[in-house]
Amino acid sequence: MIRLDSTSADFGSAFTALVNARREADADVARDVAAIVARVRDEGDAALRDLTQRFDRFDLDASGWAIDRAQCLAAYEGLSGTLRDALELAAARIAAYHLKQVPENSETIDDLGIRLGARWRPVDAAGVYVPGGRAAYPSSVLMNAIPAKAAGVKRLVMVTPTPGGEVNPLVLAAAHVAGVDELWRVGGAQAIAALAYGTDKIAPVDVITGPGNAWVAEAKRQLYGVVGIDMVAGPSEIVVVADAKNDPEWIAADLLSQAEHDPTSQSILFTDEAGFADAVAAAVDAQIEQLATGETARASWDANGAIVLVPSLTEAIPLVDRLAPEHLELACDEADNLFELVRHAGSVFLGRHTPEAVGDYVAGPNHVLPTGRRARFASGLSVLDFMKRTSFLGLDERGLAAIGPAAVALAQAEGLPAHARSVAIRLDR
Amino acid sequence: MIRLDSTSADFGSAFTALVNARREADADVARDVAAIVARVRDEGDAALRDLTQRFDRFDLDASGWAIDRAQCLAAYEGLSGTLRDALELAAARIAAYHLKQVPENSETIDDLGIRLGARWRPVDAAGVYVPGGRAAYPSSVLMNAIPAKAAGVKRLVMVTPTPGGEVNPLVLAAAHVAGVDELWRVGGAQAIAALAYGTDKIAPVDVITGPGNAWVAEAKRQLYGVVGIDMVAGPSEIVVVADAKNDPEWIAADLLSQAEHDPTSQSILFTDEAGFADAVAAAVDAQIEQLATGETARASWDANGAIVLVPSLTEAIPLVDRLAPEHLELACDEADNLFELVRHAGSVFLGRHTPEAVGDYVAGPNHVLPTGRRARFASGLSVLDFMKRTSFLGLDERGLAAIGPAAVALAQAEGLPAHARSVAIRLDR
Repeated sequence: MIRLDSTSADFGSAFTALVNARREADADVARDVAAIVARVRDEGDAALRDLTQRFDRFDLDASGWAIDRAQCLAAYEGLSGTLRDALELAAARIAAYHLKQVPENSETIDDLGIRLGARWRPVDAAGVYVPGGRAAYPSSVLMNAIPAKAAGVKRLVMVTPTPGGEVNPLVLAAAHVAGVDELWRVGGAQAIAALAYGTDKIAPVDVITGPGNAWVAEAKRQLYGVVGIDMVAGPSEIVVVADAKNDPEWIAADLLSQAEHDPTSQSILFTDEAGFADAVAAAVDAQIEQLATGETARASWDANGAIVLVPSLTEAIPLVDRLAPEHLELACDEADNLFELVRHAGSVFLGRHTPEAVGDYVAGPNHVLPTGRRARFASGLSVLDFMKRTSFLGLDERGLAAIGPAAVALAQAEGLPAHARSVAIRLDR
Repeated sequence: MIRLDSTSADFGSAFTALVNARREADADVARDVAAIVARVRDEGDAALRDLTQRFDRFDLDASGWAIDRAQCLAAYEGLSGTLRDALELAAARIAAYHLKQVPENSETIDDLGIRLGARWRPVDAAGVYVPGGRAAYPSSVLMNAIPAKAAGVKRLVMVTPTPGGEVNPLVLAAAHVAGVDELWRVGGAQAIAALAYGTDKIAPVDVITGPGNAWVAEAKRQLYGVVGIDMVAGPSEIVVVADAKNDPEWIAADLLSQAEHDPTSQSILFTDEAGFADAVAAAVDAQIEQLATGETARASWDANGAIVLVPSLTEAIPLVDRLAPEHLELACDEADNLFELVRHAGSVFLGRHTPEAVGDYVAGPNHVLPTGRRARFASGLSVLDFMKRTSFLGLDERGLAAIGPAAVALAQAEGLPAHARSVAIRLDR
């Protein structure tokens, strides 16, 4: 963890180094992924079976390619009542939030009688990637699948690796709650390729979302354009802007909730009192000792954590904008005023009783958010990722007479005579 | 041009071949582009100068790196009144259409007192690539720059190669009309890299849009994630659904307005009368002879053109959906009814007096549209490409008490104890 003071002489260069620090590994997997993608495109299910045997160590033909809805229902029914209720509460709130995102169609008729508008439609089919192993998170199933269903996607396909044949019942239960239509036991770059190109068993989809390792991310990048994808995701991060009226234990807990994800995660505190900074730093150290995930959290905090002292919380905001964090907590009285000043953040958590983790699970907004300063230009996952817009136009003779000549002039100036003629030929009558 | 009849025995396989025909060249430029991108990242302006000397054959230091606003104004003032008026009409209509796309912020308070919402902000800076040479289209400047300005982007940067030092005055005039803030005389992959990483002279941007050759497209793909980009664009295409009441000359002109773009462009007619199909085919052949762009149009029509006979126009629509065309003309009485059935198309042109070309220039909707069947999942360029959404959340003690325990249960089930603790610690008080 580094401590910075925005009033010190060398702050400018030190903060720039913090902003520019690369936490994303340059995994050189492009060639491997290209070979896997080509094999799945050319050989289909045979390639899937072979690659699954190699990477996940089980035989799809022997163990079953798909997990059916009955198995998902059984997994759901096998959960404790507390967990079932928690999943249902989360799903209901996520659905309510995302249904409000469904855009309205538009149509206007201007003063020349020209009809203009835009119409939104869901994609036909969407694929959700769910990692296997340790990072198999049911919350991730809900956050990816429910927006697709809210968009109106008819066919929602989930793929997840089941290493050694082992299936995570929480993930199956979440698939049941989210209404996933198909679930295939394939993972890695080969699963992304199967969703993009289709195989005999797995019909292709139009959009693929969901987190994954470097191979999965690279496969999505290579297949971008063949299918739609969500944003490239990097390590998680949180920025907390907190005054000294907070309990340091609460703020330390918030910083650690990101640090425990991965050694590459990042947690940064901005505060205006040095004594509070000291208290939070001490609380972080004490809490790490009690965490089952303490080793990861320690590695993240030591390598990427930071506490930045600022003269006032308002002065923190331009610095926060340079970080464009995935998560931003404003734990102070003036949270709303500060939020007005924020230009770049994936999701903002207002006030002292809004820990970021409540948003990871049950609050409603999506937890798939832009990382690595991408909030400068990217947004969290939404129903828009599962829909597309068709613009439309309708002219009658009067409308074409009014604006057609300008189109003819521009087409001629651009050296496109057939464009010009297709308009002019209708003006001559 | 191929002729198909949807009632013939072999139609299924023939139409599938048409849908799957690849018109996009697999330009193997990835390695060259990676080298150029790395050089610009590491060497900045020196690399730009050297690469511009090599590819565009002029010296940026000697000829000037930037084109200032006065030069754009002078180019505008040098145009004929007809062209000035046409650009102004186009700009005004494009601005009016795109200003309607600016999304509204949302905020609700649910029955637990939990505040939820989303806030949209423009990106700080956007870059528009404008190709040089033959394909230097002022309409493309307007279609990329005006949505950025409508989004509220403060700094709008245009880059365009000026091969041999030659500048296209129409492009400068369009930059003046669109309100471009900076204009740099660089092109190719090196220009994309400069916009993404920034150099001493050119500050970085957050989003890059605009058409380009294979090098430009590959550079955008490689830098996707460092910056936001618009969709990967392929050859242009039009599908026309027309009944026999149309003048065959009009429909032939529409088909040729796409065919003249490039030999890889595609024009397809669906109609329900064989005699009308014959008349259009004859009109296409006759009109090509009179076109200055006839050679290109002939190559496109011969290689990629198609006329598909269907028993009724309604039966054309599921076939159109499989093509998911960039442009779709519905030139028939029942245009609105057919449009209701369409699932996948970039932009739709309704009725007999709405040639697609009027949409290319002056109607208002964007002409940057998904090609190559990408309308299945992608949309045309819009203000949303220049904005991003920040979700937000605000809980008080009551709200956290209501939903916090479910978050704790899910975090514990996912093996993330610090997530659970950051919520639980606030519930214990």
